[in-house]
Amino acid sequence: MSEPVQWSELHWDKDGLLAAVVQDARTRAVLMVAWMNEQALRLTLETGETHFWSRSRGELWHKGATSGNRQRVIALWVDCEGNTLLLQVEPLGPACHTGAASCFFRSLAGAS
Amino acid sequence: MSEPVQWSELHWDKDGLLAAVVQDARTRAVLMVAWMNEQALRLTLETGETHFWSRSRGELWHKGATSGNRQRVIALWVDCEGNTLLLQVEPLGPACHTGAASCFFRSLAGAS
Repeated sequence: MSEPVQWSELHWDKDGLLAAVVQDARTRAVLMVAWMNEQALRLTLETGETHFWSRSRGELWHKGATSGNRQRVIALWVDCEGNTLLLQVEPLGPACHTGAASCFFRSLAGAS
Repeated sequence: MSEPVQWSELHWDKDGLLAAVVQDARTRAVLMVAWMNEQALRLTLETGETHFWSRSRGELWHKGATSGNRQRVIALWVDCEGNTLLLQVEPLGPACHTGAASCFFRSLAGAS
């Protein structure tokens, strides 16, 4: 096992954020990508449910607080450069605001 | 099936980048997160191998060009907001510069 990453080793970007990939711990589907500031990460660890920083709304966001589609964190990993997180979760509902299980349900035109 | 996303629907961030999650198409392990500008995405589609924009080095980067650990793109998905990509790949070697299969091999201290 590798040593855990210390908070001081996290490399927040110039906006104070880390990209966070959310993966279904059971199906291993990639559900969504969102951003965390330090407060969102602390709340995620304290509550065991995903919290993010909304770049568009400029506010903290508890995933599923209104919809009920919360995500229970099963495991949390930091990448080798300390600037990206991987959260493996148990989703209590769809990840996507469209109702899709995952936000990644559309291909790119001309990409096939 | 949902309609493919058009290039004009992609929402590049203020630095002209999209976050790109790379997932092993077979094992479904999340291998890495990197960033793409428009040229990196075009080269990825043209060559069928992942290309990224290195934010730290400020240059285009063909993953595995020197190490041989290239990634063949099997499928490419765009998230519901058009600002993140998911690439499912066949990796020809480890994704991580440390030699690990995935860049996500360390937990966060105090996160368990």
